[in-house]
Amino acid sequence: MEPRLKARQDCGKCLINQDVYERIKGKVLTAPERVNKRGMKPCLFGKGGTCCNVCHMGPCQIIEGVEEMRGVCGATASTVAARNFCRMVAAGTATHSDHGRGIAEAFYSVVHNEAEDFEIKEKAKLRMVAHYLGLDRKKPIKELAKEVAVKALEEFGKQHGRLAFLSRAPEKRQEKWRELGVESRGVDREVVELIHRTTVGVDQDYRSLLKASIRCALADGWGGSMLATELQDILFGIPQPIKSVVNLGVLKEDMVNITVHGHEPEVAEALAIAAQLPEMIKEAQKVGAKGINLAGICCTGNEVLMRRGIPIAGSFVQQEIALATGAVEAMVVDVQCIMQNVTTVAEAYHTAIITTSDKAKIEGAIHIAFDHHKPIESAKNILREAIARFPKRDKKDVYIPKKKMDVVAGFSHETILYMLGGRFRASYKPLNENIINGRILGVAAIIGCDNFRVKEKLHIEIAKELIANNVLVVVTGCAASAIGRDGLLSPDALDLAGESYREVLEAIGCPPVLHMGSCVDNSRILIALTEMVHTGGLGDDIDELPVVGSAPEWMSEKAIAIGNYFVGSGTTVVFGPTFPTENSKIATNYLREDFNQMFGASWRIARNASEFVSIMIDHIRKKRENLGIDKPKPRVLYDMAMRRALGAPTISPFHGLGCFGPTHLRVEPEEQTQ
Amino acid sequence: MEPRLKARQDCGKCLINQDVYERIKGKVLTAPERVNKRGMKPCLFGKGGTCCNVCHMGPCQIIEGVEEMRGVCGATASTVAARNFCRMVAAGTATHSDHGRGIAEAFYSVVHNEAEDFEIKEKAKLRMVAHYLGLDRKKPIKELAKEVAVKALEEFGKQHGRLAFLSRAPEKRQEKWRELGVESRGVDREVVELIHRTTVGVDQDYRSLLKASIRCALADGWGGSMLATELQDILFGIPQPIKSVVNLGVLKEDMVNITVHGHEPEVAEALAIAAQLPEMIKEAQKVGAKGINLAGICCTGNEVLMRRGIPIAGSFVQQEIALATGAVEAMVVDVQCIMQNVTTVAEAYHTAIITTSDKAKIEGAIHIAFDHHKPIESAKNILREAIARFPKRDKKDVYIPKKKMDVVAGFSHETILYMLGGRFRASYKPLNENIINGRILGVAAIIGCDNFRVKEKLHIEIAKELIANNVLVVVTGCAASAIGRDGLLSPDALDLAGESYREVLEAIGCPPVLHMGSCVDNSRILIALTEMVHTGGLGDDIDELPVVGSAPEWMSEKAIAIGNYFVGSGTTVVFGPTFPTENSKIATNYLREDFNQMFGASWRIARNASEFVSIMIDHIRKKRENLGIDKPKPRVLYDMAMRRALGAPTISPFHGLGCFGPTHLRVEPEEQTQ
Repeated sequence: MEPRLKARQDCGKCLINQDVYERIKGKVLTAPERVNKRGMKPCLFGKGGTCCNVCHMGPCQIIEGVEEMRGVCGATASTVAARNFCRMVAAGTATHSDHGRGIAEAFYSVVHNEAEDFEIKEKAKLRMVAHYLGLDRKKPIKELAKEVAVKALEEFGKQHGRLAFLSRAPEKRQEKWRELGVESRGVDREVVELIHRTTVGVDQDYRSLLKASIRCALADGWGGSMLATELQDILFGIPQPIKSVVNLGVLKEDMVNITVHGHEPEVAEALAIAAQLPEMIKEAQKVGAKGINLAGICCTGNEVLMRRGIPIAGSFVQQEIALATGAVEAMVVDVQCIMQNVTTVAEAYHTAIITTSDKAKIEGAIHIAFDHHKPIESAKNILREAIARFPKRDKKDVYIPKKKMDVVAGFSHETILYMLGGRFRASYKPLNENIINGRILGVAAIIGCDNFRVKEKLHIEIAKELIANNVLVVVTGCAASAIGRDGLLSPDALDLAGESYREVLEAIGCPPVLHMGSCVDNSRILIALTEMVHTGGLGDDIDELPVVGSAPEWMSEKAIAIGNYFVGSGTTVVFGPTFPTENSKIATNYLREDFNQMFGASWRIARNASEFVSIMIDHIRKKRENLGIDKPKPRVLYDMAMRRALGAPTISPFHGLGCFGPTHLRVEPEEQTQ
Repeated sequence: MEPRLKARQDCGKCLINQDVYERIKGKVLTAPERVNKRGMKPCLFGKGGTCCNVCHMGPCQIIEGVEEMRGVCGATASTVAARNFCRMVAAGTATHSDHGRGIAEAFYSVVHNEAEDFEIKEKAKLRMVAHYLGLDRKKPIKELAKEVAVKALEEFGKQHGRLAFLSRAPEKRQEKWRELGVESRGVDREVVELIHRTTVGVDQDYRSLLKASIRCALADGWGGSMLATELQDILFGIPQPIKSVVNLGVLKEDMVNITVHGHEPEVAEALAIAAQLPEMIKEAQKVGAKGINLAGICCTGNEVLMRRGIPIAGSFVQQEIALATGAVEAMVVDVQCIMQNVTTVAEAYHTAIITTSDKAKIEGAIHIAFDHHKPIESAKNILREAIARFPKRDKKDVYIPKKKMDVVAGFSHETILYMLGGRFRASYKPLNENIINGRILGVAAIIGCDNFRVKEKLHIEIAKELIANNVLVVVTGCAASAIGRDGLLSPDALDLAGESYREVLEAIGCPPVLHMGSCVDNSRILIALTEMVHTGGLGDDIDELPVVGSAPEWMSEKAIAIGNYFVGSGTTVVFGPTFPTENSKIATNYLREDFNQMFGASWRIARNASEFVSIMIDHIRKKRENLGIDKPKPRVLYDMAMRRALGAPTISPFHGLGCFGPTHLRVEPEEQTQ
């Protein structure tokens, strides 16, 4: 375990490998250096949400409470901050959902026999998804898969009726959404309407705007993102806990190194299959390499880490530095969070940047369109481009830092059932019991990006303090990679957990922090929370659970969409160190106080690790208090009423439906053979 | 006719009534004063397209060509400018399309008997629209209307296949779209995908981004906007040339004045019907008024001007000033271009601001939700709120300027057929003939917003010079109102037209500038241009026509979407005085030169009226030259080849389909009685 970072540093440098960074300095300008060299801080109006650029009379820089400094049209700071916040939610929702649509299209091709190579891997999950899409889950698999493909695509475009997966939420939550008028309709429609509301002279009441932002965000969490996760699982497998390694040390001196970067698993899955084909290994050997080494970056990395144990070279902030090892033949990218500068860094080496999605080209990259009708053929073309670069590698210029760290990843909500309850009583009951009896204080999620503007290792600091306080921590996205690099995803980190939490962990043998996947996989957390509610003993709705979320180094608009769907679903989230509505106290207060009234959950802001942890633990304690499970000696005070509550969980008819849940809706074994 | 404005002025004040403006000064801060009082000019990075705010490492202010001043992620000026341009196109498309969806839903309710009061007014047009939506136009009207309602809504949500109305374009244009891969799919999907492309680290090649912006924009012009226009015509009637008046003088001292402001016609149509009901007039008389006077603002104003001859009190820039007359009991707004400051101005008087759409609330406004199942009942509630305010009007505080101007408006593309060709040979043939023989030099559109930042009366200056040069000018949106205020929409303005153009105008008795409607009605221009191509003699595609567009005072993102769909459809457009990609020469050059290679049309920038006119006339002349109709004595040189071309127009099978066109697809009279 690395020692705690002592003090704040100058810039985001603290997040990346200093030694590689020093080697590239002066040769190519990279992000951490550019942060300093730009010579100007981010514009405070823009950063705090009160630069209005929705019409060409502007940009208008607004100051709350100063009449002269309203927009030319009279827009107030609260309107503008809310509008900008809504645009972030809409952009994040569009992004996750267009990813979801992409995978739905791939799925459609596979089940309609228009695509080679891939097939349905998880039949039981297919039946579960079919059920929630309103289909008859007992139909033969092939027929059902086709119906699911059509229905899934319809979720994006439908004009009327509510999103199908909203019905997976606790009944009380669904009622709340209905009452408040925030039930999402089709995913695309919600994005388009929210953008419409934010254009010049439409919705100009921060309350109306911010409420609408929830309806759009729910279409991300319970719509686009959830569809992405579920269909990916069906096609590529439900993640299971798997051992692997992370950090730059996963690159290999004697192999063709290919980093897979972006967000979708499809290209990386095909590459993983193709890289193991004898013909491709032979091709690599022909140019003097021992074989082909795939390593992940960002969320594509998380996807193949979770399903295949493919190691992760780095998170978002490490993408340039991975190239600067001089040991990467090709960085293969799909969509999202690819820094444009990777092509500039690659030019200084023998490295190819290969774009694969028609939605995402980069100047200076090679474009090899990935044909999802012929995944393996596409993958081979990509591999050949990389292999051809291997002889051009300048060995003198190669520096692979030794650092790497063991991780266990792959905690889908289904496997958490297993881990906690074992094969024979797979359920969230042990988790709820341990929360009620106080061994586990509560659950916290650390999600989102990492960010060159952040001056301390927030993810790590927060995670360490939370587990030391007996909080079960789940992580996704780049936060997960960062936490992995510091060792917290390894069972070896058990000694960092608080005493009672460690007891639980030792019994089941899992790490103190659970890696639940990529950023679309935050939808797994929604389902896990719902399962906790249905399991009983912790209230009737998500907002009653002793649970909290956080995104301490967020930078993408997607993070705001995610935060918003968690709040709309009843989970308070803490974001920082800065927040996009801060220049309007009115709008920010609405997100905190009024949202709390409406959804039982708030947006909170923290400036540093210590503030994050304080808010998160206080929140969990408050929820425990409300549930009456806050007494100092939990085992004694775990009274009979509680036991009764556990004995008769207030489950919905869909509770535990899926591949594992031991309920009346459980998929029968014989169905799985069809 | 007002005299030409001699010199540039300090701010957008020149666009509005100075005398009312002086009266309100010191009492309420209004936009023109705020422009000066803000004490800062718009941020140049934001204005010119190189402020990147798509992730929270920023905002990054980018300088093209300066390595240190790329974004933290390495984003270049061209990427950022293209990204911001795409977001404007996406927002504009979302806005028009969500309006289109709203009217499609109203239409659905009407034809499914879920709504009272409204009915199908244009059966022939319904059949034409049905045909283009791929339905059997010969079915009984009631059945067909239901099918159209369903199909129209599907156009927004569909995930596969191209937009139905793309098939209305010239065949050659459709081929070009296919080849370039810019055929729009569902409207919503195009918006969502374009937003996805612009989020952090996705599409980072300005060429790829800008090309994608066309696909989205076409989903506006030939999708959302066109659906809005067509369904509005079917429900509320195809506009016919109609006499009315514009400017603040249309308000009446002795009546309850209600201004209808925004973009959708539905609320205003209902108000127009309800305001004529004896019971409502009686209610107004009870409080001492002679009756109820409706006056339009912005595009809702254009909608009811075109169909009902309801006068227009003002365009976008006049909305505050209309209230400052002290004579308005209520300003009823729906969506888009409502300045938030209207509530502040209204508070200084007895005026109610009444919001009616659930998508658009304003702090300080009264919200009376318009129920499109019960339009008249909703309208009555709104009228009652206004009537109740009349006794509170402070007569000492009322000042209605005398200024008003006669206009003729309502030139839908169908009525242009009539005007030009008369009842018995209704077609664009006379127009094409007059262009070929040189009496009319070409056609120019002046569209879009007006803008407090503009320092001369650009619309008027440009229109006057164009008609003096024998250019037929069509106008929409706030440009149309502004031009109307200066008298150019009146046949009395004939003497301002060039000699040969005046000859044509005198023969048919129409004004030199044709008011074609609101901003969604720019789709009428697309159809008119297509008709010109099909009529023959002026080339095989829209980009061959001697036609040009302009938006000299644009401010809304919608204007950029409109400009982009015109360019993608083959019409060069001139925007100014500033342009949202200007800080990147690379991106701007792509919009001009590369787009011209791809689509036969460019984005051009002009700084003042004279530059606008020069570019526009040069462009028209160039197109004439290409067609070989540029000779100095056109009548002599109008040779036989041209006549033959006219004799045998290269029409598509759909040419002239509609309510009037004399073709084999003409709707039979007996069908209209069903």
